[in-house]
Amino acid sequence: MEKSVSFVKTQYYTFAHPPNEFALETGKKLGPITVAYETYGKPDKERSNTILILHAFSGDAHAAGWHRGDKKPGWWDGMIGPGKAFDTDKYFVVCSNVLGGCKGTTGPSSINPATGEAYGIGFPEISLQDMVAVQKCLLEYLGIEKLFSVAGGSMGGQQVLEWLVAYPDHVQSAIIIATAAKHSPQQIAFNEVGRQAIMADRSWHHGDYYRTSSVPAKGLAVARMIGHITYMSDGSMTEKFGRGSGVESYLQHKGKSFVDRFDANSYLYITRAIDSYNAWNGRGIDNAFKDLSAKVLVLSFKSDWLYPSYQSLEIVKACKKTGVDATYCEIDSTYGHDAFLLEADKQTYLISHFLDKVSSGITDVDYEI
Amino acid sequence: MEKSVSFVKTQYYTFAHPPNEFALETGKKLGPITVAYETYGKPDKERSNTILILHAFSGDAHAAGWHRGDKKPGWWDGMIGPGKAFDTDKYFVVCSNVLGGCKGTTGPSSINPATGEAYGIGFPEISLQDMVAVQKCLLEYLGIEKLFSVAGGSMGGQQVLEWLVAYPDHVQSAIIIATAAKHSPQQIAFNEVGRQAIMADRSWHHGDYYRTSSVPAKGLAVARMIGHITYMSDGSMTEKFGRGSGVESYLQHKGKSFVDRFDANSYLYITRAIDSYNAWNGRGIDNAFKDLSAKVLVLSFKSDWLYPSYQSLEIVKACKKTGVDATYCEIDSTYGHDAFLLEADKQTYLISHFLDKVSSGITDVDYEI
Repeated sequence: MEKSVSFVKTQYYTFAHPPNEFALETGKKLGPITVAYETYGKPDKERSNTILILHAFSGDAHAAGWHRGDKKPGWWDGMIGPGKAFDTDKYFVVCSNVLGGCKGTTGPSSINPATGEAYGIGFPEISLQDMVAVQKCLLEYLGIEKLFSVAGGSMGGQQVLEWLVAYPDHVQSAIIIATAAKHSPQQIAFNEVGRQAIMADRSWHHGDYYRTSSVPAKGLAVARMIGHITYMSDGSMTEKFGRGSGVESYLQHKGKSFVDRFDANSYLYITRAIDSYNAWNGRGIDNAFKDLSAKVLVLSFKSDWLYPSYQSLEIVKACKKTGVDATYCEIDSTYGHDAFLLEADKQTYLISHFLDKVSSGITDVDYEI
Repeated sequence: MEKSVSFVKTQYYTFAHPPNEFALETGKKLGPITVAYETYGKPDKERSNTILILHAFSGDAHAAGWHRGDKKPGWWDGMIGPGKAFDTDKYFVVCSNVLGGCKGTTGPSSINPATGEAYGIGFPEISLQDMVAVQKCLLEYLGIEKLFSVAGGSMGGQQVLEWLVAYPDHVQSAIIIATAAKHSPQQIAFNEVGRQAIMADRSWHHGDYYRTSSVPAKGLAVARMIGHITYMSDGSMTEKFGRGSGVESYLQHKGKSFVDRFDANSYLYITRAIDSYNAWNGRGIDNAFKDLSAKVLVLSFKSDWLYPSYQSLEIVKACKKTGVDATYCEIDSTYGHDAFLLEADKQTYLISHFLDKVSSGITDVDYEI
């Protein structure tokens, strides 16, 4: 359904051209790097009204609005737009595809200029820190010195944490949704099974499938099916499928359609990056947010068993340890982890109030949990 | 570690020889059927002290004691033996491998006498009802008219339910542990992903891999890894693996070693049987246990998110609806679903008291939950 609105277009920024490659956390170099990004709303004169939105594992730069010909809008369209949580009448919103991704930003499926062929598993190991460092480069290019806010859920929330740890002086406020400072063994385990499913697929060809006529479709589909179960709750599945069947064909469909829009090697690289991330690694939980002056809103969802609330509370604890002005709310939802994508109204209420108070300088908002 | 005890041996009973094949629930015929079983303790004169133990998904007839040369005893050895929960000084304990299995009882990897080759997916569809009906045949062969008790966890618990529904007059008491009258969409979903992983493996060869030099090892390993995550709890995984790594290699090891001891087609057939089972299908939850005079003990575990306590409570509700003498206890454990295999002491306390009271005819025991 196309509306009579102006369509959004993905833009691209390429940097780190050899010999000035981008230095990854491992010390390896990568370049050139192209970043796919979109913007919504208008920057003010000082570009001080920018909100950076960070996408989750399978997301992309297309967070809001419509691409010409699309059947659905961007993945967080319910949250970004005029009068919405991230109000584009007030804020300049930026979202970019992560490093290692497959939606326009350089990743394993990109052509390696040195060989003229796709990187495959020749793509260097990347970290969540690298993803955020690349976002910093994009913002510098866009002339944005300090973010009014930075927000994201799930893997997006991990990146928000990294922004606070790596660039505390460049963030005025942060919204951290349904995430963890470090993945639990259970979270790592689910991702590991997905990785094993992909690598078990003979069409994976040790990551070198771009030259072949096939992709590791079955393995990637299995990986996605596992993900889907963890994104929903026991209750939301029962609500959707009742006591009858239908869940098998639904999962199979979700698995297959994912193959059309996601690259198996990106799955491997990105899940490894989020599994090895630990926001407390640098200075420990007690000092991670030392000297941070940003105001922080932490949100979790009651039925989210993939990123349970205790992980969000650990982030709140880290804030409190160093006197960071943090507000926490556990939102009552039955949608499981998917709630950060589906519960627009409940999040909007909390986020728009939070951003208003950051704007006006009021602090220490406390919501009923 | 071999003790100075007498070793147990698996025994075999073959019946349903053509033309007197066993009639499956679907109407199809199967025969001959071999059942692998073990017994512990001694039957009394009337064989009225028999307890039938029903194994879980990947279990077998070897529930207790030691096979010569084994490095570990049967899967419920902590529960079955002299002075244990199922006290072999008092009771005659029987355990058999389920129909469709791969541990001695006829299943897809058995030779089809009509072709001289393994059944593969030519094996007929089986149901949980069929598994129980085969157990009934074994007990008739053993001269056991009425069970003093029937007990099992997980898939074993589903079979206990079926015993109560199908043969209410042949059961004096029942112990139903960590199970559900019907799988939820989430439970079905996890099994479905396992099935898809197996069928995605090219070595599966549409179920006809017995003639080839390989088995669908990678797919079966992935399926088992998923299972393993669901058997543990978030907390027990964190306790085992801490904040460090190790969970990936642990899962990979568990997946690989499962391939050596389980048949991929059995995985498909058995998970389909448990996914389609519904104890209430016949007469509904309100009347399922009508005319049942057996005493029932229902146990669940606090951290078991695969078979959550609300599913056990539904079974208790069905008992209460028809006045069945049912006792329920949610055991405090951090082990997740695995608790029914690991929490021997806590279960022993409850089960031995329950069986003593069934023996002595005292009813309406209520434990603190």
